[in-house]
Amino acid sequence: MPYIAPQKDMMFTLEHVANLNQVFADLGVDLDSEMVTGILDEAAKLNQDIVAPTNRTGDVKPSYLHDGKVITSPGFKEAFKAYTEGGWQGLSHPESVGGQGLPKLLATACCEMLNSSNMSFALCTLLTDGAIEALLTAGSERMKQQYIPRMISGEWTGSMNLTEPQAGSDLALVRSRAEPQPDGTYKVFGTKIFITYGDHDLAENIIHLVLARTPTAPEGIRGISLFIVPKRMVNADGSLGAANDVQCLSLEHKLGIKASPTAVLQFGDNGGATGYLVGEENRGLEYMFVMMNAARFSVGIQGLSVMETAYQQARDYAAERIQSRPVDGSTREAVAIIHHPDVKRMLLMMKATIEGCRAMSYYTAGLSDIAHHHADESIRAKALAQYEFMVPLVKGFNTEQSIEITSLGVQVHGGMGFIEETGAAQHYRDARILPIYEGTTAIQANDLIGRKTIRDNGAVALNFADQIDETVAQLSRIESLATMAQPLANANTAYRQVVTFVLNHSKNQPNHVFAGSVLYLKLAGLLMAGWHSARAALAAQQQAQNGTADELFLTGKMATANFYMQHILPQTTALAQAIIAGGDTVADFDVSCF
Amino acid sequence: MPYIAPQKDMMFTLEHVANLNQVFADLGVDLDSEMVTGILDEAAKLNQDIVAPTNRTGDVKPSYLHDGKVITSPGFKEAFKAYTEGGWQGLSHPESVGGQGLPKLLATACCEMLNSSNMSFALCTLLTDGAIEALLTAGSERMKQQYIPRMISGEWTGSMNLTEPQAGSDLALVRSRAEPQPDGTYKVFGTKIFITYGDHDLAENIIHLVLARTPTAPEGIRGISLFIVPKRMVNADGSLGAANDVQCLSLEHKLGIKASPTAVLQFGDNGGATGYLVGEENRGLEYMFVMMNAARFSVGIQGLSVMETAYQQARDYAAERIQSRPVDGSTREAVAIIHHPDVKRMLLMMKATIEGCRAMSYYTAGLSDIAHHHADESIRAKALAQYEFMVPLVKGFNTEQSIEITSLGVQVHGGMGFIEETGAAQHYRDARILPIYEGTTAIQANDLIGRKTIRDNGAVALNFADQIDETVAQLSRIESLATMAQPLANANTAYRQVVTFVLNHSKNQPNHVFAGSVLYLKLAGLLMAGWHSARAALAAQQQAQNGTADELFLTGKMATANFYMQHILPQTTALAQAIIAGGDTVADFDVSCF
Repeated sequence: MPYIAPQKDMMFTLEHVANLNQVFADLGVDLDSEMVTGILDEAAKLNQDIVAPTNRTGDVKPSYLHDGKVITSPGFKEAFKAYTEGGWQGLSHPESVGGQGLPKLLATACCEMLNSSNMSFALCTLLTDGAIEALLTAGSERMKQQYIPRMISGEWTGSMNLTEPQAGSDLALVRSRAEPQPDGTYKVFGTKIFITYGDHDLAENIIHLVLARTPTAPEGIRGISLFIVPKRMVNADGSLGAANDVQCLSLEHKLGIKASPTAVLQFGDNGGATGYLVGEENRGLEYMFVMMNAARFSVGIQGLSVMETAYQQARDYAAERIQSRPVDGSTREAVAIIHHPDVKRMLLMMKATIEGCRAMSYYTAGLSDIAHHHADESIRAKALAQYEFMVPLVKGFNTEQSIEITSLGVQVHGGMGFIEETGAAQHYRDARILPIYEGTTAIQANDLIGRKTIRDNGAVALNFADQIDETVAQLSRIESLATMAQPLANANTAYRQVVTFVLNHSKNQPNHVFAGSVLYLKLAGLLMAGWHSARAALAAQQQAQNGTADELFLTGKMATANFYMQHILPQTTALAQAIIAGGDTVADFDVSCF
Repeated sequence: MPYIAPQKDMMFTLEHVANLNQVFADLGVDLDSEMVTGILDEAAKLNQDIVAPTNRTGDVKPSYLHDGKVITSPGFKEAFKAYTEGGWQGLSHPESVGGQGLPKLLATACCEMLNSSNMSFALCTLLTDGAIEALLTAGSERMKQQYIPRMISGEWTGSMNLTEPQAGSDLALVRSRAEPQPDGTYKVFGTKIFITYGDHDLAENIIHLVLARTPTAPEGIRGISLFIVPKRMVNADGSLGAANDVQCLSLEHKLGIKASPTAVLQFGDNGGATGYLVGEENRGLEYMFVMMNAARFSVGIQGLSVMETAYQQARDYAAERIQSRPVDGSTREAVAIIHHPDVKRMLLMMKATIEGCRAMSYYTAGLSDIAHHHADESIRAKALAQYEFMVPLVKGFNTEQSIEITSLGVQVHGGMGFIEETGAAQHYRDARILPIYEGTTAIQANDLIGRKTIRDNGAVALNFADQIDETVAQLSRIESLATMAQPLANANTAYRQVVTFVLNHSKNQPNHVFAGSVLYLKLAGLLMAGWHSARAALAAQQQAQNGTADELFLTGKMATANFYMQHILPQTTALAQAIIAGGDTVADFDVSCF
C-alpha cells in the first residue's frame, strides 16, 4: 500500500498551527496558500511516484561496497536525479548560492514527505543540507560559491565527519589531525566512523566536512577545527582532478536504514588527504553546532515521517483484515479489525501522536523562519530563543515516540507484522536509529536542561507555560472542547513543577536533576505536542462553526486532539513524579549493584 | 559478552517471593534449596556453555528450506542433543510418561535460562512442551505412551497447527477439514501458516497437532477438533514408517527469531494426511486452551528472558565504554558511561522491570504448582483461579515490557547498538514477536477482562488488591522502606478504580471498557510486578537485618525495588485516567476519520 502525502493535514497545520500566512507576511515572502498547495502537490507527486517505490527495494537490496566504491540501491540514482533536477535540494537555501530561498516552514512539509517516502534515501539530501549550512555559517565567500551551487544542483553531495571509534557523543576525544602545508592547505589524517553517505555513486564528488586537530590545538573541545576534504580534488577552473587521499574501508551492517551507506572513512593513509580550513582554527565545534541544530530538527522530522508511513500502512491493513466478531455483539459476523476497540485505540494513539508531533514541528519551523529572517531584531531574538528551546524537543520527543508508534504499527498487523515482506517491520527497524544519531536523546536532554532551561533561568520554558494557560482558558470557553482543558492544565502544572525542580536543584544536586533529564524532555514534548493539538482543535472548531470546510476532517481533528488529552497527556503527571520523587533512587544507586 | 544465568536473583526470588520451600512442602516434593541450587547450576552450565553460543550464529545463519526439508542453524543439533539427553525436556512432565515430575516453579527458572540463551532454539522445546500438555489433557492412554516418552527423549518433537491465512486470532474461521476413514483414522486437508518448527532436522519425527473440522461439525469455534498428524507414520512396533502427506511449502522471512523455522505446512495434497482424533470431536479448542495457558505463560517467560540478556549486554557495555565527563564535575576526565545519570536510569529501568517481572512470574509458577498438585481441593481451586488471572498478565505484561527494555538496551549502546554485530539489535528484533504470538496482547486483555475479571465479578482481582494493602502496611512499618508504601498504595487505588469501572460498564458500554483493555492489563501488570518487588524488598530487609547474607546484593535489591516504586508505578495513575476518562474518545471515534 503506497505512501500518500497527508496534504490536507499538512496544509491545515501550516495554516492554523504554524500561522503560515502571518509568517510569510512577516518575512515578506510572496506566496499565498494556493501557491503553497501547488508546491506541496509537486512534492507529493515526486515523492509518491518516484521516491517511495525505492523504500522497500532499498531495504532488501542495501547499498554495498565493491572495489572500494559504494554502489547504492536500485532506483536511487533515478530518484536523486529527479529530486535535484526538480530543485528540491535548494528549496530553503539562499538564492545567492543557487537555492530558492523559500521558508523553512514550507521546506519542513516537503522534508516530511521525502522522509516518509524513503528515510535511507533522504539522508543523502539531509547530510548535504547540513554541509551547506556549515559552509554558509563559516565558509569563505569563495568556498560558498565554489561548493554550494554544485551541491544544490546534485552534481556533488556533502558529508559530516565527526565520530571516531573513541569519540561518539564526546567530541572532546577527537584525535584526527590536520597538518598545515606551506600552500595554506592541510594534510588530514584519521579514521572516521558512522559516516552517512560517506561514499556513494549518486554524484560525481563528495564534499566531506571533517573535524580534526591542528598540531598547536589545545586539548578538548576547544581544539577542534573544521576542514573541507573533497573526495576528488577540484581544479581552479572547477573541473574535477585526481582522487583525494580518502578511502572507504567498510560499510556497517545495520538494524535499519539499510540502503543508507554508513561508512568507515580513512583519511590520509597515502601521505595525507588535502583539506581546507573552514573559518578559523579551533572553532570547528561552534560551526558544527549551528549546523547541528538544523540537522537535529531534520532528524525530528524523520521521526514524524516514519510514524506517518507506519500509520498509513497499519490503518490500511486494519481496514481490510477481517477477524473476530465485535465485542458489543452488534453483529455475529467477523468484522474488519479497525472496528475492534483495541485496534482503534492503537490507531488513535498513532494518529494523535503524529498530529501532535506535526503540529509542534511545523510551529517550530515557523519560529526558525522568524528567528532568522524577521526584520525586527528583538522579534528575531525572541523567536530564536524559542526555536532553540524547541529543537531538542522536536529531535528527542518525535524520535522517541517513533519507536513506540512504529512498534504499534507492527502490533496492528498481528503475525503479519513480524514478516518482513509486509513492510511494517522495516519502519520499526528504521526508526531505531533516530533517538541515537545527531545526538542521543540524553544529549538532547542535557541541551534542554543546560543551554535551554538553566541558562536563561527558565524564562523561555516558563513563557511557554503562560501561553499554554491561555489555550486552556480558550478551551474552557468552548463547550464542545471543554473536556480538553483540564488534562492540558494538569500537564502544564506538572511541567511547571519540573522546570522549577530543575532550576532549583541543578547546582546542588546535578545527579538528581540529570537522572530525570530524558523524562523532562518527554514531559515537555508531550505537553508541547498536546498544546499545539489543542490549538489545532480550536481552529477546527472555528472552521466547523463557519461551516466552510470539510466536516469529517474537522470532526476527526477535534476527536483526535481529545484522545491526545485523555489518553496521552496524563503521562506527564507520572513523569513529574518520577523526576521529582525518583531522582535520588538513581543518583544514590551504587553502580556495583548493577 | 556471554550470558551468565542470574542464579543469585533467581534463588532469592524462588525462595522469598515464590515461597519455594512452602510450595515444595505442600506438594510433598522432596527437594531442598541446596538441591535446587544444584539443578540450577547444571542448567546454567548447559545454557551458558552450549546453548548461548548458538544465539548470534542462528541470527546470522537462519534455518532454511532445502529440497522441501528444513536445515537448522549451526550448533542447533548439538544443543538439542545436549538438552534432551540431559533430561531437560521432561523436567516438569509426569514420571509416568518419562518425565521427572519436578515443580513448574523450578522448571520456570530453567525455562528462563534457556530462553535467555537462545529464544529461537528454545521455541522447539516450548512447542514440544505444548504438544505434550495437549496429549496429557485429551489424548488416550495409548497416545500418551506412544508419543510422549519419545518427545521427552528428543527422538521426536511436537508442533501446534492452529493458524490459517484467514484464521489468526479468530479460530472460528478455521477451514482445514478431516474426513473420517473406515479404519477410525482421518484424512486431513488444509493449509496451516506460522507453524513454529513445523519442519526441522533436530529429530527424526514431528508430532503435528492440527485443528480441523469434521464433515458434520457445526460452524464456528464449537466445530473444531484436534488431530495428531505425524510427519512420518509410526508403525505398530514403534518404528517409523513412510512419510505422511504433509509438506513444508516455505519458511517465513522474519524480523527476529530468525533461526526458528516458521513454516507454511500443506496437509493432504496427495490424497490426505493420516490423522488421529485426540479426545472427542468438536472439543479441539477446549483442549487447546488448556495447553495454551501453559504456552502463554512460557511466552511470558521468554519476555523476561530476552530482557535479562539485553540488560546484561547493556550493563557490560556501559561499564566499559568511556565517554564524557560526569555532570557533577567530580572529575575532568571522561568516565565509563555507567556513571552518567541517564545511563544509570536506563539500566535501572531495565533491572527493576526484570526483577519485577521475574518476581511476578515465579510467584505465578508457584500458584500453578499449588493449583495442580496440592492435596486440598479448595486450596487447588483458589490457586487455580489466581493462576489463571495471572497468566494473561505474565504473557501480556512481560512481553510488552520486553519491547521497551530491549529498546533501552539498544539505546545504552548508542550508535553501536544499531550495528548488528553488537548483538543488542537482535534482542530488539527477537522480542517483537512476543506480544503477538500465542495470542496478541489484546487477546490476553480480552481474556483478563472477560474470563478473569467479569466472570467472578472481580473476586480474584480484588482479593489481590487486599493482599497488596497488607504489603503496603508492612512497608509503612519499616523506616528504610517506608517511602515505597505510598506509590504502591496509589497504584493499588488506581487498580481498584479500574476493576470497578470494568465491572460496572462491561455490559452497558462494552466498547468503552474494551478500549481500555490493554491499558488495564498494563496497569495490573505494573502493579503485580511492583507488589512482588516490594515483597522482595521486605525479604531483603529482613535478611539484611539478620546480617547473614550478601549485603551488596540485598542493598541493590531494595534500591531497585524503590526505583520501581518511584519511577515505574506512577504510570498506573495515568493509565487509570486514560481507561476511565478516555474510553469514549475511542468508542465514539468514527473510523472514517482515520
